[in-house]
Amino acid sequence: MNQDRPPLALTLGDPAGIGPELALAAWRLRTINPGVPPFFVVADPAFLERTANRLGESVPVAEIDPETAAEVFPRALPVVPLPSGAEIAAEPGKPDPALAGATLESITAAVAFVQAGRASAVVTNPIAKYVLTQVGFAYPGHTEFLASLSVAPGAEPPLPVMMIWSDGLAVVPVTIHVALRRVPELLTAELVERTARIVAADLRGRFGMERPRLVLAGLNPHAGEAGTMGTEDRDVLAPAVERLRAEGIDIRGPLPADTLFHARARQTYDVALAPTHDQALIPIKTIAFDEGVNVTLGLPFIRTSPDHGTAFDIAGRNIARPDSLIAALRLAERLARHAASGRAVPASADIIPISAYADRPRPPRPTHFDPTDEL
Amino acid sequence: MNQDRPPLALTLGDPAGIGPELALAAWRLRTINPGVPPFFVVADPAFLERTANRLGESVPVAEIDPETAAEVFPRALPVVPLPSGAEIAAEPGKPDPALAGATLESITAAVAFVQAGRASAVVTNPIAKYVLTQVGFAYPGHTEFLASLSVAPGAEPPLPVMMIWSDGLAVVPVTIHVALRRVPELLTAELVERTARIVAADLRGRFGMERPRLVLAGLNPHAGEAGTMGTEDRDVLAPAVERLRAEGIDIRGPLPADTLFHARARQTYDVALAPTHDQALIPIKTIAFDEGVNVTLGLPFIRTSPDHGTAFDIAGRNIARPDSLIAALRLAERLARHAASGRAVPASADIIPISAYADRPRPPRPTHFDPTDEL
Repeated sequence: MNQDRPPLALTLGDPAGIGPELALAAWRLRTINPGVPPFFVVADPAFLERTANRLGESVPVAEIDPETAAEVFPRALPVVPLPSGAEIAAEPGKPDPALAGATLESITAAVAFVQAGRASAVVTNPIAKYVLTQVGFAYPGHTEFLASLSVAPGAEPPLPVMMIWSDGLAVVPVTIHVALRRVPELLTAELVERTARIVAADLRGRFGMERPRLVLAGLNPHAGEAGTMGTEDRDVLAPAVERLRAEGIDIRGPLPADTLFHARARQTYDVALAPTHDQALIPIKTIAFDEGVNVTLGLPFIRTSPDHGTAFDIAGRNIARPDSLIAALRLAERLARHAASGRAVPASADIIPISAYADRPRPPRPTHFDPTDEL
Repeated sequence: MNQDRPPLALTLGDPAGIGPELALAAWRLRTINPGVPPFFVVADPAFLERTANRLGESVPVAEIDPETAAEVFPRALPVVPLPSGAEIAAEPGKPDPALAGATLESITAAVAFVQAGRASAVVTNPIAKYVLTQVGFAYPGHTEFLASLSVAPGAEPPLPVMMIWSDGLAVVPVTIHVALRRVPELLTAELVERTARIVAADLRGRFGMERPRLVLAGLNPHAGEAGTMGTEDRDVLAPAVERLRAEGIDIRGPLPADTLFHARARQTYDVALAPTHDQALIPIKTIAFDEGVNVTLGLPFIRTSPDHGTAFDIAGRNIARPDSLIAALRLAERLARHAASGRAVPASADIIPISAYADRPRPPRPTHFDPTDEL
């Protein structure tokens, strides 16, 4: 592992969800080929120690600062305390607004570390928005909160773009957590263009792709069939694609969404943008359910996240699969290494399908997001 | 092959599309394990002979009536002439309204044969709606035309339900070829309930499933998260599911669409209903692009179809893959056998993935529907 850069900062997520046990699991699996990169958790160290004990896992916890985390990582899980010193007393599976302060502080502290150069990237465990809104959390989601933390208070935050990334497919929903009914009005040419520009810029700048190939799925069935089944593809999406191409962005579309994701089609692009949440999320969760990573593009720092929720229904049972969190840590490491070196880091160099891991039986994973979760 | 029942009636589809060459290819592959069931094409025999010659394929064509088709099938492609005796002079890849009459007559004749007990099922090759509308064709699509042919002229046709079926996944879009913007208004509880009843009845009656397991995907992201991202899932879909369950139909939902189609989730149901075209078609085309079969439920006869379009762009080059047509013929045969025997015919008995076929290199197939095609 590279130790000439700061380690990754991992947030705790909702303390009553599966975040804490996944953090412990990711550390326990650190030596598995090809390794889990050094990270520290931003949390109450005593809480993680109790969590390990309760699960019967032997995980030494080291209360530490970010600068010594990488050195400690091989022999103990580095935990950087919350700046306030807040203690956490959570019961798995029992979300509690009393825990919201610590959940949010873990995020704000992790962002502060990466902004101060004391962490290479932020990797976030899942939160449950409805728990946070009970204490006044006013952001549409985790990602928008991170965007607002990335600028000075009161400043206009950047447009954060959600990409779900796996070995064989990367997708970007242009609209995300909104009612389907609202999509046609929200799907402006400006939104498509801003999103595509951010995707193209970050695939170049962060992923080191010289000329990323984008495709855009249509909104309507068969991309509207020349306007006979909805006019948005012809009147909004096609002109946006034309303008983007004129700017030098390699993007095709709008293409019928249903025929865009089979094996041969996937070889023709690097990332697929889709107008709706489900058009983007269905294909990647169909073929890479356990290995998907949520990457936020457009932020001034690197942020990845597992693409599952808090899974309160199975929290505390140690059966949640750490595949997606480990994939998120590895991808963050890859992007951080590229940022440090300025050179492209090929995916094949360090990212292999986590499904190759066979050290434990593959237990059931919840087949759906906890409906109250927020990516 | 079972010969105690009439053979399958295969329509020609658009003569300028890939239908004619696929019919020839399916016949040539008839002896391949596990076989292609006996069928006859309803078309101008001389046109199919010329098509074979032009492609350099040695396919003897037998002008025949339905009753002798099965006997002839091992040694020649049985072709039943159009009742009008119309001749077809089509050029591959050049759709022409002058061909529309023959296209439609092939369909009406095939339906007449199955209704008269002279064919076991109708298998349809793809048509291009925009060609037909130029001669006054007034139906929303192929399927609605078949529904109207299934009843006496002027009578109310049944609601035809489109199921796309493959070995590992079957899906039903509740709304089909309509603008996405219109889906929330069209997606009534009544439509959901009528659709689910037809699906449950046909999976029992035609597929021989004792108690088919249905799931319903939500309309909104995460199935609306308890109404916070769209209210239709809570207010329209959930009550419909409740009523269907009260009728004894095994249906769950609405469930988040994005987590409904990965391998483990697929094992928990026999068919997934989804509110939009893309929610249903994306997952099946992602994992079974070449093997999907379109089955129309709710008709008084058996109808299957390949799930691709006319592919004018590659017609006449003999590179179109017959996988989906062969799968459609096999599924029609399986359903016809069940209808004749009254017993369930297990999928594993005769339907194997066509991808097992290796008698020819797998050429490219168009990666999208011809935008002017109609299923």
